[in-house]
Amino acid sequence: MRDFFPEDMAIRQHLERAWRSAAVRHGFEEIGGPTFEHLDLFKIKSGEGIVSELFSFQRSGGDTDYALRPEFTPTLARMAASKGRSLPLPTKWFAIPDLFRAERPQRGRLREHRQWNVDLLGAPGPDADAEVIAVAIAALRGLGLGSSDVRVRISHRGAAAGLLSACGVVDDRMADAFSLVDRREKVPPDVFATQAAAIGLDAQGVARLDQIAACRLPATTPPATIAEQQRLPVESVSDLAALSLELDKRGLLPFCEWDLGIVRGLAYYTGTVWEIHDAEGVFRAIAGGGRYDGLVELFGGPSMPACGFGMGDVVLALLLEERGLLDPAHGVGTPRPDVFIVSSGDDKAEALFTPLATSLRDAGLHVRHTFKAGRNVGKQLKEASGHHARFAIILGEELANGIIVVKDMSSGEQAKVPHGDLAAWLQRRLAGHAAERPSCEP
Amino acid sequence: MRDFFPEDMAIRQHLERAWRSAAVRHGFEEIGGPTFEHLDLFKIKSGEGIVSELFSFQRSGGDTDYALRPEFTPTLARMAASKGRSLPLPTKWFAIPDLFRAERPQRGRLREHRQWNVDLLGAPGPDADAEVIAVAIAALRGLGLGSSDVRVRISHRGAAAGLLSACGVVDDRMADAFSLVDRREKVPPDVFATQAAAIGLDAQGVARLDQIAACRLPATTPPATIAEQQRLPVESVSDLAALSLELDKRGLLPFCEWDLGIVRGLAYYTGTVWEIHDAEGVFRAIAGGGRYDGLVELFGGPSMPACGFGMGDVVLALLLEERGLLDPAHGVGTPRPDVFIVSSGDDKAEALFTPLATSLRDAGLHVRHTFKAGRNVGKQLKEASGHHARFAIILGEELANGIIVVKDMSSGEQAKVPHGDLAAWLQRRLAGHAAERPSCEP
Repeated sequence: MRDFFPEDMAIRQHLERAWRSAAVRHGFEEIGGPTFEHLDLFKIKSGEGIVSELFSFQRSGGDTDYALRPEFTPTLARMAASKGRSLPLPTKWFAIPDLFRAERPQRGRLREHRQWNVDLLGAPGPDADAEVIAVAIAALRGLGLGSSDVRVRISHRGAAAGLLSACGVVDDRMADAFSLVDRREKVPPDVFATQAAAIGLDAQGVARLDQIAACRLPATTPPATIAEQQRLPVESVSDLAALSLELDKRGLLPFCEWDLGIVRGLAYYTGTVWEIHDAEGVFRAIAGGGRYDGLVELFGGPSMPACGFGMGDVVLALLLEERGLLDPAHGVGTPRPDVFIVSSGDDKAEALFTPLATSLRDAGLHVRHTFKAGRNVGKQLKEASGHHARFAIILGEELANGIIVVKDMSSGEQAKVPHGDLAAWLQRRLAGHAAERPSCEP
Repeated sequence: MRDFFPEDMAIRQHLERAWRSAAVRHGFEEIGGPTFEHLDLFKIKSGEGIVSELFSFQRSGGDTDYALRPEFTPTLARMAASKGRSLPLPTKWFAIPDLFRAERPQRGRLREHRQWNVDLLGAPGPDADAEVIAVAIAALRGLGLGSSDVRVRISHRGAAAGLLSACGVVDDRMADAFSLVDRREKVPPDVFATQAAAIGLDAQGVARLDQIAACRLPATTPPATIAEQQRLPVESVSDLAALSLELDKRGLLPFCEWDLGIVRGLAYYTGTVWEIHDAEGVFRAIAGGGRYDGLVELFGGPSMPACGFGMGDVVLALLLEERGLLDPAHGVGTPRPDVFIVSSGDDKAEALFTPLATSLRDAGLHVRHTFKAGRNVGKQLKEASGHHARFAIILGEELANGIIVVKDMSSGEQAKVPHGDLAAWLQRRLAGHAAERPSCEP
């Protein structure tokens, strides 16, 4: 669990601005849901096994089990299903929820984290798959990461089926095989071997599976070539070939690679499956997604195609930190005051002090001033500087002539501005800083 | 518990923009904390009585009790206390957490809601009290509410003590009296009468308490006049007199009134206590706050003055809805696409379709297009109109000459723009709409 002091919050908001901007530019609309749901909702997609990973509870005196959401997808599916056939297709939604895991925190994996979820419902084609990948990459590029920093590792359930088939799994054991491969890192090797043998994967088949799964190729490699090299049926990679064209139209091939070793949630995904990793593969996955056409129907809604992804804040922030991308030069930081008001302490200055702060705030400016009783101008200017104020407004003897002294805190230049012109004068000067000011909308 | 579909989310974001803008303009910095804390943390301020109002749970196999936060103040106090004497004073923080109550939902009171919290630590004077009230009013004004819509009802622990004293409570029973008055609406009248008698409040005293508490006066009334009229010691209202001057400097008197009937949390507040209500008093309180100088020390930190408030999203949205302030004319709504790309379906148009969408999105524009396979221009323009796109870009035969047709969807005007100039042309035209586009920063 984390406390976010202002400097931590500035980082989280920097990520959220990039997420929101990328999603809105691509035409996704933001939704939200409750922090906890009925426990049963989370079993629909993940089975009973999820229960031990949840923070669950009852209302005192009640008999319903609730759980803090470990993922947003069940909520999204419930919301989409609740609209039934009135849901416009495609529906493009994103959300930025807090999610919870009842497990021991590890590096890159905390009990509570914030995750960006992007879902495109109702579009079956590879253009939709490519679009959600484009949204993820747009956000990462917005944060300063390029194709030398991150890699989208892409696989496909069809390719995985071809692969398992080539290794000896018969068609009617394919679902079991996906489930087994998915659990591979959680079961001891001897248990894995026994279960693998039961579905037709002997030691040689497992070795071949490992060999093919370890093979990663640039996305500029035609998928047909991979099929040929690995002796997989060409149909198993036809969707990847179509995806490749759509990625190319969006300039995404330099970010992508084919990786048949991506096996996350194969029992759940129905088409493409992908993860975004740092290029060196040092951290956990930054994002994961793919196509899950059965989702909304599983939650009681109409059958519709669906694809999307989730991207958490924890690993992403670690990578940005490591790349030196979390500093003010990259737009990260607490908001800087536009002006800091300094009073000389004489009667005219004191009378104007608070009404001026009020009127400048009403005009949209971020205004600060000292809360100390003392009126030493030098000390107040030091406080202004400590807050990184852009301008200091000095209320002194010039007020007798209706003049306010404005000091540019970076250049040190001073200007004398008539009292009545002050707000407009500052707004004009601050417009020049506008590009540096964070905004949550593109 | 609420689902937020895009049109609901647009309302919540409208509130949050106003909250964040007001807080930032006044120099407050955003913080955040965990969604749940150790259960014991919530008992520190509120006692054992709070437990039945909480959603509490254990991690399976663990022995620590956690609870979903019912308020943000304990987290804020814990965070401030953790900094000890290194916390700069004043510290000006705000937060926008989700909060939880394990009770039956009622109008204006839900199991989960979002609340804006504003706290000013380390400033003891009435200027600080007035500033946090100014922040609350700035947000409400930003949402279109004026002094005829909302009222800040202000009382003071000193005035309440004067009042109780005048009704017969002796000094050393004052703490019990605050606690009793605070619980007044929760205990049956006969129990109240018995407990009141025990601390020196007989039936006549209770009647007098009711009479004084029912008296509300415009904040332009000097507090000394109230003291005189109600036969209260003049010292009991001296802080309100000082606050009155500070409110006046900020132009806030038209929004405020003195209301000795405000008794919320008197056992907790140490100075001013206030609530914001709709002017007719139809809804529950929109916000509540005051001065609580003992807070940070109570949570193990150094002694420091503190004041602030909380404002929830539920009652506020009900009031804005009732006042007709939640429509696009008031800046509420899902983001409108800047452009909708329409293809005639010919080869040149199809080849440019996706790369153009990509490049315009990279240039910061919100771009949409159809996901349908059909390329009927009229149907695509209808879809553009359904999405309230500002411009439609029509890729047709003019492309042969490097020309793109741009249609202004509100005026119907069409312009022919050279392909290479398109992004800049659109950005110039959209700058004119900038004032209409929501932004989260002032």
